[in-house]
Amino acid sequence: MTDADTKVEGETKTEEETKTEEKQEEEKPVKEMRAVILNGFGGLKSVKIVKRPEPVLADGEVLVRVQLCGVSFQDVMVRQGVTESPPKTPFILGFECAGVIEAVADDVENFKVGDRVVGLPDHRAWAELVPVNAKYVYPLPETMPLQEAAAVTLSYTVAYLLVHDLANVAPGHTVLLHSAGGAVGQAVCALLQDIGKVTVLGVASKNKHEDIKDSVTHLIDRGGDVPGEVKKVCPEGVDVVFDCQGGEECNKGYALLKPLGRYILFGSSNIITGETKSILNVVKSWWQVDKVSPLRLYEDNKGIIGFNLRRLLHHQPGGHERVREVVQTVYNLWQKGVAKARIDSTFALEDITEAMTKLHERKNVGKLLLDLSMEPKPKPVTPAKGKKEEKKEDKEEKEEEDKTVKENTKNNTKNEKEEESKAEEKEK
Amino acid sequence: MTDADTKVEGETKTEEETKTEEKQEEEKPVKEMRAVILNGFGGLKSVKIVKRPEPVLADGEVLVRVQLCGVSFQDVMVRQGVTESPPKTPFILGFECAGVIEAVADDVENFKVGDRVVGLPDHRAWAELVPVNAKYVYPLPETMPLQEAAAVTLSYTVAYLLVHDLANVAPGHTVLLHSAGGAVGQAVCALLQDIGKVTVLGVASKNKHEDIKDSVTHLIDRGGDVPGEVKKVCPEGVDVVFDCQGGEECNKGYALLKPLGRYILFGSSNIITGETKSILNVVKSWWQVDKVSPLRLYEDNKGIIGFNLRRLLHHQPGGHERVREVVQTVYNLWQKGVAKARIDSTFALEDITEAMTKLHERKNVGKLLLDLSMEPKPKPVTPAKGKKEEKKEDKEEKEEEDKTVKENTKNNTKNEKEEESKAEEKEK
Repeated sequence: MTDADTKVEGETKTEEETKTEEKQEEEKPVKEMRAVILNGFGGLKSVKIVKRPEPVLADGEVLVRVQLCGVSFQDVMVRQGVTESPPKTPFILGFECAGVIEAVADDVENFKVGDRVVGLPDHRAWAELVPVNAKYVYPLPETMPLQEAAAVTLSYTVAYLLVHDLANVAPGHTVLLHSAGGAVGQAVCALLQDIGKVTVLGVASKNKHEDIKDSVTHLIDRGGDVPGEVKKVCPEGVDVVFDCQGGEECNKGYALLKPLGRYILFGSSNIITGETKSILNVVKSWWQVDKVSPLRLYEDNKGIIGFNLRRLLHHQPGGHERVREVVQTVYNLWQKGVAKARIDSTFALEDITEAMTKLHERKNVGKLLLDLSMEPKPKPVTPAKGKKEEKKEDKEEKEEEDKTVKENTKNNTKNEKEEESKAEEKEK
Repeated sequence: MTDADTKVEGETKTEEETKTEEKQEEEKPVKEMRAVILNGFGGLKSVKIVKRPEPVLADGEVLVRVQLCGVSFQDVMVRQGVTESPPKTPFILGFECAGVIEAVADDVENFKVGDRVVGLPDHRAWAELVPVNAKYVYPLPETMPLQEAAAVTLSYTVAYLLVHDLANVAPGHTVLLHSAGGAVGQAVCALLQDIGKVTVLGVASKNKHEDIKDSVTHLIDRGGDVPGEVKKVCPEGVDVVFDCQGGEECNKGYALLKPLGRYILFGSSNIITGETKSILNVVKSWWQVDKVSPLRLYEDNKGIIGFNLRRLLHHQPGGHERVREVVQTVYNLWQKGVAKARIDSTFALEDITEAMTKLHERKNVGKLLLDLSMEPKPKPVTPAKGKKEEKKEDKEEKEEEDKTVKENTKNNTKNEKEEESKAEEKEK
């Protein structure tokens, strides 16, 4: 049996189909695997660990027996439903997995069973077995441990494209880097150090400063007056701004550029504030960003460049070919010791919400990984909740969800119920 | 006596001051030089060859005895009054001169009398003697003829910044180049050939195709359906667009970009159509250009970059330092045979309007130069015009000028009269 959620192309099934499959399931027991699914867009409660039937390969795919998964801010955004064209819930979360190939579709060349690989599918990476189109699978150098690969591949691929393809950073340049303590931020720092003679103004939460002080030239507190601090250190401005925040930061970043400077927007994490999405933040993030006329850029000698790996890799022609070249370059840089895994912490699959919370609260320095061989942390022993307490919690959650986009809520409530009853059935 | 027009900082004088100076001039004869002045923004009739007092050096300047001047589209735009913050008319035209240093201000180091240099002042370069702030003066390699320097310096400096600093062109890229037959266009082609394996789609008027066919991969007729032709040759789009047209070309250029592509606007010659400026074209050039939100660039994986050498060199902090580095690189490339002078034709100072017309009509392939040692072409012998004919011509000119911006016309008519009477006085 195949399951909609394990397919790459995001098809979903009618209720009837699902029921038929469930019947078959009862008749003929199938192998199952663990997976992290999203039941509906919103808070942490929408994320569940469930048993799912093992996926079946489609043409062009390889099946990866996953050992490690990467967790990034993009996953928090997907959970909240603020990314572009996400699959319908329920679906398996995740964009990064590393493991060993267990099966290869007949039409796939270049890969064989037993190959150690990283896969970057469009969602559905957080499971024990993941079918990935071979276009998004990268073979590892022999000497590269899986854990290094899981920590390095995505972060450094993004960083390399930012630093070399788009910003064209050269010795003598000054760079303003937002989220300097994140996995991509730390990868950018490593590549800039490799270029040499680059002044890096790193913005990070105060609590990360001690940990990242060696990777940047000047530390700037995320909570403070960032433009003011930049002007203090570099009154003449900066050559490059790497911004993954969006919103009001865009306009400020543009103003901080020197002539010939480039502002590079590679994320819009500013739309995320609370645990659940507020439609207000999404709208704010858009209207706070000034539109720019190319003629103004001509007068100012400035450039604005956007970068979005998911779109490039999965939705734009030719994108996956360029990404494959860059992954190869990144692995070469790893062999030279330039690209270094910086792992903040590793969690069991079952502790995914803890990893997401750490990211969301911006407490990580470097990469967050899920290790499928790890035992979940023992949950604190608390007295069983009374019915009343549970109801109170549900009410609070309900209030939070009211803030979310109505269509999503409408779609997902239905899906969520189906999924939960299905999941419960399986757990029995 | 010093003259306002020979000063770099563009001060102008009250009518009284001018009169006082004219009196002094009558009392004490001064040395004079030839210069090309603009009497008022508009058509070719506003451009005059006059005698002017030799300029006096100010602090920080060197005095260049000019042998060659460069003529570019920017000069046509200045004449029409469509550039940003031009000096008040009358003033000496021109941005490029090459010659030998005749005097050096006391506070200038690094230069001495007899040095062969190129000067890139902010206007006022087309005269026999030009005072230039040392910030904008570049010493030539010993083996570099002045004519090569005059043809190579500005074009290749612009081209180098475009190709390397901003577009970051690499082997395998596809580039769409507007005005491929111009001096900058030909310099861009040479630099792209030096990179190697770059596919160049060159847009040029049909009449230039034969002359430039070796410098581009595909020729596209300027008068045809440029986007249609590009899509025919490169259905997947291009990595870089170099656009010096502006206007509606901006939107088309953006749409032709591949993911990770960059659109680079380095001019806005689309505002020039007829011999005199139409305010309608200026406005059109602005409203035809779509404003872009950085968030759209993020979704599209595209970049927009503006470039404007005059602003960079003369009006932005740090700009002249970067330009100096690039000029040095260009001279090294000249020594290696990469940067090659491509001279379309050379005119006497007196034939400047002929050079401007050639540019305006897009008939040049490569650089247009003025050579101050050249004799003007003999004017065709025609019977003297009757009063009636002259009046008719004046009327036609008047009609054309009515299309120009009113404030400019108001200012300049006054200045023009003053200047002409002054010039006539001197010629006596």
